Amino acid sequence: MIKEILKQVQQGKLTVADAEKELATYEDLGFAKVDYHRKKRQGFSEVVFGEGKTAEQIISIIKALQLKDKSVLVTRISKEKANQVLEACPSFAYNEVAKILFWKDSDQDSFFEGYIAIVCAGTSDLPVAEEAAVTAEILGCKVRRIYDVGVAGIHRLLNNIDEIQNATVTVVVAGMEGALPSVVGGLVSHPVIAVPTSIGYGANFNGLSALLTMLNSCSSGISVVNIDNGFGAAYNAALIHRLIQKGAKHNENALS
Amino acid sequence: MIKEILKQVQQGKLTVADAEKELATYEDLGFAKVDYHRKKRQGFSEVVFGEGKTAEQIISIIKALQLKDKSVLVTRISKEKANQVLEACPSFAYNEVAKILFWKDSDQDSFFEGYIAIVCAGTSDLPVAEEAAVTAEILGCKVRRIYDVGVAGIHRLLNNIDEIQNATVTVVVAGMEGALPSVVGGLVSHPVIAVPTSIGYGANFNGLSALLTMLNSCSSGISVVNIDNGFGAAYNAALIHRLIQKGAKHNENALS
Amino acid sequence: MIKEILKQVQQGKLTVADAEKELATYEDLGFAKVDYHRKKRQGFSEVVFGEGKTAEQIISIIKALQLKDKSVLVTRISKEKANQVLEACPSFAYNEVAKILFWKDSDQDSFFEGYIAIVCAGTSDLPVAEEAAVTAEILGCKVRRIYDVGVAGIHRLLNNIDEIQNATVTVVVAGMEGALPSVVGGLVSHPVIAVPTSIGYGANFNGLSALLTMLNSCSSGISVVNIDNGFGAAYNAALIHRLIQKGAKHNENALS
Amino acid sequence: MIKEILKQVQQGKLTVADAEKELATYEDLGFAKVDYHRKKRQGFSEVVFGEGKTAEQIISIIKALQLKDKSVLVTRISKEKANQVLEACPSFAYNEVAKILFWKDSDQDSFFEGYIAIVCAGTSDLPVAEEAAVTAEILGCKVRRIYDVGVAGIHRLLNNIDEIQNATVTVVVAGMEGALPSVVGGLVSHPVIAVPTSIGYGANFNGLSALLTMLNSCSSGISVVNIDNGFGAAYNAALIHRLIQKGAKHNENALS
Amino acid sequence: MIKEILKQVQQGKLTVADAEKELATYEDLGFAKVDYHRKKRQGFSEVVFGEGKTAEQIISIIKALQLKDKSVLVTRISKEKANQVLEACPSFAYNEVAKILFWKDSDQDSFFEGYIAIVCAGTSDLPVAEEAAVTAEILGCKVRRIYDVGVAGIHRLLNNIDEIQNATVTVVVAGMEGALPSVVGGLVSHPVIAVPTSIGYGANFNGLSALLTMLNSCSSGISVVNIDNGFGAAYNAALIHRLIQKGAKHNENALS
Amino acid sequence: MIKEILKQVQQGKLTVADAEKELATYEDLGFAKVDYHRKKRQGFSEVVFGEGKTAEQIISIIKALQLKDKSVLVTRISKEKANQVLEACPSFAYNEVAKILFWKDSDQDSFFEGYIAIVCAGTSDLPVAEEAAVTAEILGCKVRRIYDVGVAGIHRLLNNIDEIQNATVTVVVAGMEGALPSVVGGLVSHPVIAVPTSIGYGANFNGLSALLTMLNSCSSGISVVNIDNGFGAAYNAALIHRLIQKGAKHNENALS
Amino acid sequence: MIKEILKQVQQGKLTVADAEKELATYEDLGFAKVDYHRKKRQGFSEVVFGEGKTAEQIISIIKALQLKDKSVLVTRISKEKANQVLEACPSFAYNEVAKILFWKDSDQDSFFEGYIAIVCAGTSDLPVAEEAAVTAEILGCKVRRIYDVGVAGIHRLLNNIDEIQNATVTVVVAGMEGALPSVVGGLVSHPVIAVPTSIGYGANFNGLSALLTMLNSCSSGISVVNIDNGFGAAYNAALIHRLIQKGAKHNENALS
Amino acid sequence: MIKEILKQVQQGKLTVADAEKELATYEDLGFAKVDYHRKKRQGFSEVVFGEGKTAEQIISIIKALQLKDKSVLVTRISKEKANQVLEACPSFAYNEVAKILFWKDSDQDSFFEGYIAIVCAGTSDLPVAEEAAVTAEILGCKVRRIYDVGVAGIHRLLNNIDEIQNATVTVVVAGMEGALPSVVGGLVSHPVIAVPTSIGYGANFNGLSALLTMLNSCSSGISVVNIDNGFGAAYNAALIHRLIQKGAKHNENALS
Repeated sequence: MIKEILKQVQQGKLTVADAEKELATYEDLGFAKVDYHRKKRQGFSEVVFGEGKTAEQIISIIKALQLKDKSVLVTRISKEKANQVLEACPSFAYNEVAKILFWKDSDQDSFFEGYIAIVCAGTSDLPVAEEAAVTAEILGCKVRRIYDVGVAGIHRLLNNIDEIQNATVTVVVAGMEGALPSVVGGLVSHPVIAVPTSIGYGANFNGLSALLTMLNSCSSGISVVNIDNGFGAAYNAALIHRLIQKGAKHNENALS
Repeated sequence: MIKEILKQVQQGKLTVADAEKELATYEDLGFAKVDYHRKKRQGFSEVVFGEGKTAEQIISIIKALQLKDKSVLVTRISKEKANQVLEACPSFAYNEVAKILFWKDSDQDSFFEGYIAIVCAGTSDLPVAEEAAVTAEILGCKVRRIYDVGVAGIHRLLNNIDEIQNATVTVVVAGMEGALPSVVGGLVSHPVIAVPTSIGYGANFNGLSALLTMLNSCSSGISVVNIDNGFGAAYNAALIHRLIQKGAKHNENALS
Repeated sequence: MIKEILKQVQQGKLTVADAEKELATYEDLGFAKVDYHRKKRQGFSEVVFGEGKTAEQIISIIKALQLKDKSVLVTRISKEKANQVLEACPSFAYNEVAKILFWKDSDQDSFFEGYIAIVCAGTSDLPVAEEAAVTAEILGCKVRRIYDVGVAGIHRLLNNIDEIQNATVTVVVAGMEGALPSVVGGLVSHPVIAVPTSIGYGANFNGLSALLTMLNSCSSGISVVNIDNGFGAAYNAALIHRLIQKGAKHNENALS
Repeated sequence: MIKEILKQVQQGKLTVADAEKELATYEDLGFAKVDYHRKKRQGFSEVVFGEGKTAEQIISIIKALQLKDKSVLVTRISKEKANQVLEACPSFAYNEVAKILFWKDSDQDSFFEGYIAIVCAGTSDLPVAEEAAVTAEILGCKVRRIYDVGVAGIHRLLNNIDEIQNATVTVVVAGMEGALPSVVGGLVSHPVIAVPTSIGYGANFNGLSALLTMLNSCSSGISVVNIDNGFGAAYNAALIHRLIQKGAKHNENALS
Repeated sequence: MIKEILKQVQQGKLTVADAEKELATYEDLGFAKVDYHRKKRQGFSEVVFGEGKTAEQIISIIKALQLKDKSVLVTRISKEKANQVLEACPSFAYNEVAKILFWKDSDQDSFFEGYIAIVCAGTSDLPVAEEAAVTAEILGCKVRRIYDVGVAGIHRLLNNIDEIQNATVTVVVAGMEGALPSVVGGLVSHPVIAVPTSIGYGANFNGLSALLTMLNSCSSGISVVNIDNGFGAAYNAALIHRLIQKGAKHNENALS
Repeated sequence: MIKEILKQVQQGKLTVADAEKELATYEDLGFAKVDYHRKKRQGFSEVVFGEGKTAEQIISIIKALQLKDKSVLVTRISKEKANQVLEACPSFAYNEVAKILFWKDSDQDSFFEGYIAIVCAGTSDLPVAEEAAVTAEILGCKVRRIYDVGVAGIHRLLNNIDEIQNATVTVVVAGMEGALPSVVGGLVSHPVIAVPTSIGYGANFNGLSALLTMLNSCSSGISVVNIDNGFGAAYNAALIHRLIQKGAKHNENALS
Repeated sequence: MIKEILKQVQQGKLTVADAEKELATYEDLGFAKVDYHRKKRQGFSEVVFGEGKTAEQIISIIKALQLKDKSVLVTRISKEKANQVLEACPSFAYNEVAKILFWKDSDQDSFFEGYIAIVCAGTSDLPVAEEAAVTAEILGCKVRRIYDVGVAGIHRLLNNIDEIQNATVTVVVAGMEGALPSVVGGLVSHPVIAVPTSIGYGANFNGLSALLTMLNSCSSGISVVNIDNGFGAAYNAALIHRLIQKGAKHNENALS
Repeated sequence: MIKEILKQVQQGKLTVADAEKELATYEDLGFAKVDYHRKKRQGFSEVVFGEGKTAEQIISIIKALQLKDKSVLVTRISKEKANQVLEACPSFAYNEVAKILFWKDSDQDSFFEGYIAIVCAGTSDLPVAEEAAVTAEILGCKVRRIYDVGVAGIHRLLNNIDEIQNATVTVVVAGMEGALPSVVGGLVSHPVIAVPTSIGYGANFNGLSALLTMLNSCSSGISVVNIDNGFGAAYNAALIHRLIQKGAKHNENALS
């Protein structure tokens, strides 16, 4: 890309000032530099981490982002803050369990027929699992939810194993000892993204126990994201989904 | 017991000197106080922790203990040290994998027909599993070994689950992420004693990962011993076995 | 069991559909999969961990479980939540110190005459000790409470040692430095289940200090559960109790 | 699959004995249960973790595995041990930097034309990067190595960014502060798998510093494996590669 | 200095009482010893850490300090406490974002034309960045703020790199994984002072992750202050600024 | 003592029942076993740790203790709880800064003319320093307070060093980096008891930093108590004071 | 002292040069500044920490120190290094278990008839216990050794409790879970100095477990030194001993 | 700089190929990308971290670097490796204590007359202090060494305080409890760069204790580098020195 800009400058098609502008890929709001290039660079729009930002800041960022691309995603936003934002941005919707705010009409064409399995160990892991599920849906993926199938009652997992095995990617959410990804990882032939949750008590140390379990898993094919980071897992899964679609298109082109 | 001694003193059956002697329940070797009362107090003879003791010290302790009770158990003793001890104490045998030295003819009547299942996750956990198995056998218990059934290939565990379910107690030994006890704990109706091992690398932190996993297990019925403490798990299991036998006798008596 | 189902299918006694159903051992409430097989598999009904669940979720789970088995146990449930549940489930009772909700008429036949000693170090450890005591009672065991006998005044422990020595299992609850299980473990000949509590300050690190103490105990016969996990210790103790009873029955049968 | 076996049993096509055998998916070597189903279940053959196994054990496992599938992979195996194995298994080759032993003629058809970028921060991270690169190649993927492009000289990374951006998956290996995945993650639109290494000193704590950095990355699209786990990262990347190929085939089928 | 006092005593120019008084460099308020010598010894007046002191205590300290030097700085003071102090000390002003209270007319002659770049990674790091910026300004330095240029969008940093490279010192404030100082450190030829913030979640451990990242930075020229210690970083930067000015003066003198 | 009781039993001077009673050195309040022997055994009455006990429990314990010995000390008791206790026990007084409740007329004869120096580093360490000072006074020791003499202004310490050097024991209280005991320890020839406080922020980790500093001190003659444990330090110091007095008496006797 | 020097300077009794010299209290060996004032300032000669110093460095320091005071103590010195030093300094002796090198004829008049009890939990703690015992003896104190009385066999401790109770100070050395000081602390009325050792395995974490136990002890009257720091404990105990002697003298003077 | 290149391209003074080349600022050795721009970008040549690189790799890197700039610095290089390099690069010299290899005739014009004070606490901290001192000297700074002035004998520090106060920057190296920087920081009016060392034992945790102490210092004006990172501290100090010189020149220019 830089090469191209250089060429255009050389050929007089682009002034130096414009070339510099071309690189100015964000708007500076003072407290934040809103990234316009993200979608081009990373494939999805910028995602706003709602925690620690005021409703006013979030509204400003949304408005700046929407000048270029309507589909914005705000994660970790409380009901109170979300309500304030919704008044200013009525075209948005809020999912209370997942604590996600998103553009109602966002382009949710599921790009192909595969689905992501979102598996969680216990009822208390639900908010993180839902953060993952809703994120994946907003990013255009089909999702199947298989909840409360922790290893203490392994038959619950085994009874749903077909649905998990047929997914293209599985996100496994677990707190306490976090053993579920190891068991799932040994039963499937696709990537497993493990999300430790901070659910537990005592020597759980706010999710550290589950995190270490997942990092040390003896099953191959598991990678791990931060504690409670349902969004991150879903984002990874969506990237993989898009790759599959691309692979498909690529081969189509090769065929034609 | 103190009450009894008091009574005997009162009744003139015991002099004050003898009463004091009665409480002198160990021999003082200077560097060690050898405990003669252990078997009476705890049901099994004193177990000597071999690590950090010289062969000479171990020989002295064995000789002192054997004045009262022949069956002595020395754990964590290297082959070199064991060979030195065996020369001085030829009635002993040494198990190299388990690193245990024990009195060859120790009274290994299995007190009843139940058995302890010793389950381990991977081949590398074998030395700890064997420490547990050999200890349990020396303490007079039947043992069944079910090795290399880690959760990454859950079918290997499920294929052996009957043998585990029929045990009276199960000792589960696992390193890496230490998820195996949670799965076993959910499938059996007897106590599970979990032993984390220091096997693993990176964020395993010498067994800390497996230890935390086991402490945070969402399966009920699991208790945990120190990292690599196969002996401790087996000792606990043997205590439970003896209780069952006692229970049996108790009821027999009640019947007759 | 699988073999039997296979045989019945082969013999035409079971349709494939029914065979599959037979394995469907839980009801799916969406947010939870209620486990009907637990009692069969583990000997006690499923226990509901109340923390992090809403009163509504708890009520749904209780109602689903009670279709098959009335005796349900809910731990870590606050007074407020418990009151909400009690309105919907009037046949339940609530123990405020232990924070346990249970079916009032649950089948509390103490299955044999042995008892569990629940020992705690200080007055502040009482809630955890009571969680253990009440759990054990609900699971059908006799319990003796020996409270506030911490090692700083060892004579208080020694004065109660007979009652502890005569128990079949001892649960020792201690915070601060957690030294009590080591001392008790050296004085009894039955299993000791140690429960570290989060009571303390400074370098106690919310129970980590007591946990490490117990894991490193130089007394044999001690196993450890998670910090503040009074329920888990009692559940383990009850499993051992049941084994003793079984052992008794087993020998009876052998006699007859 | 279970359903199918049930049907075959019902239809008399499979005896109960054979149905059971069908589930017996491993050979029991005593110290190990060799998994024959792995390739079917997970898509790649079982990988043997060489550390902590003797050369003899490794040879036995290889021989058992090769009865069903020739392509075996042994990781973390020292030169000495590898030489012993090579004598017994002359059809294998050894890569000394990556410490990997593999079947020389293993079926390395790169299944499609995409490639995995293996990026590392410093010269000292090379062994882990090579473990990843060699693993990926053995699993049939094309690989491009972009080494020594740590963030201290960001221009080295930027000069190679096109090659990284055109990959389908990027594995980023970094020790010290482990900042490289965050920078790469912000510049690409495909999944990044981050591998912390134990390279560093002082407050690096054997890779903990790099591990935490990667887990807390503010770039989306990053997932993390254990410290020094180059194999695990490559295995994940290969799973994703295979998915893309599958996606391609799937669409081909849809077209025809 | 002691030598001089000794001489003056010897020469009778100073009585022993006065000599002792000369060393009495603070006023004892009972709860605090107010340091009058600080400015002479360290170049800047004593800075009062507001956290954990009552408004009354702060007022007393200010009043004592102002007997000798008007320019006092109070950090980490909440709005409520600041308002109470402002009533008693109307010549002070309060900066709410930076939580700093300072003497309105403090002598803010920027001593030379260089400036400190205050760079921060994300919007949530702003309070710490502002603590640094406001402190530096009160200590008489010019400041340029470059905010929200975290490594996830490296182009935002690169677009502002000239302004950062032209600074004399750069303070880099970052939470989450804290990778920004490493990248900045590799691009500038002046000292970088890194401030980890407690912003983040999960395995961030309240800033520990960012702290370790910065300590392990592979870029040379970076030193680190405590988590959230914006004040400390600015104080260091101001010391360096003053040195440059001194160096200038020194050479001027050398020239003349 | 046991010997004596045995003798008395033998001589018929003591019945078995009385002998047993003699060992019953506490009253059992159910939730607490109040220790009557403490003063005899340890030289000071039992001290009640107020945190985590209700006002009612504290009142019961005080009343039980006062049957035998009036001087009771309750530490870590909030103002609210103290007020409740004071209503029931009007002969007590409360020190709000030190959070200590004590018997107003407790026997505070300073047993000899030496004094304990209580030194603290900063104004924020005052509550812990006062807990130490008030405790020592109640236990009958003279105390001198030297506050706010942290190492950042070493001259404040040096100006008070004579008063510290003349003490018999010095208690040094410090938070933040906790360096003060090392400096004091190098300047005095008597025991220094170091108390880390939880005062600080960031990498202070609630006092862990100060605790480690003190444990690793390169000055000889320093021992350490738990974080914020002003009481413990004072108790130790008082024990040493009493020893000195005893030593004095001992020698007097030797003289006469 | 400074006051005195000031006065002497004022009175012309001391020149400024001499006054300065008076403060020059050490000899500068380049790699070390040998402290001549230590004995005056702290009551005992400087103690040389042998670890990490070469034999040559130790010899130089000893020779410098002996110019002013013959009794030098070198701790943590290996046999090899000690032999080298002994050749150069034949008037010294070496204790191999305690790893201490000391001046053979050092002035070991035990200053009064009290003794320090050195108590240790297990045989493996002996080297640390001996470091304490030998140090105390060299510093002129009587010592009684009570070894191998760990809490797992509490009767061994109780049988020796009289000897411990009659000491003036008790040093308690313990590894593993480190519970012994708590029990001893509750049984004596003098200060207890606790020394955690690094003896243990697994979750012992090189003595951290024992250290935390001792810091959190619920017994009053316990202070703690660094892991394995037998020297430090003995030094503290000797300081207390000297105080008692001083106290005695003080009162003698008061009497006369 | 980019702007200038753009302009030159526009003006036809630079071809696109040359513009790209201009950005190719390193040579790719395969295992390393040697950075030619470092001196331009950062002011000093690239420094090679010798640990974990073979002698061959180091020689290759040196030879590549010397094509553009002779003065190369290799840190953390063992004597053995250094000797191998010296054979191939005879114009280099090796400092064994500091473990630094450097170009003998490197341009060591001390750029101005100020000096850096290198202060260390104990004899064992010497290697790290020397790494700092030698590095600073090679980077062209004057250095004064003030060694073995730890806080346990504060008079040794105070006797050298003038020399420290007159430095422009002070590097303070300390292990054990790491208290020295706090004391120095309170006595000087220039920046202090603190280097924790891994010297110590027990709860020192390989330098963690000293690191935390320094980060939490209550003295202003202290920043910290990684454990044992003497090089990093000196590099920072040299950057500050150069700034002072620049400041001087700047003002000269302003004058003229």
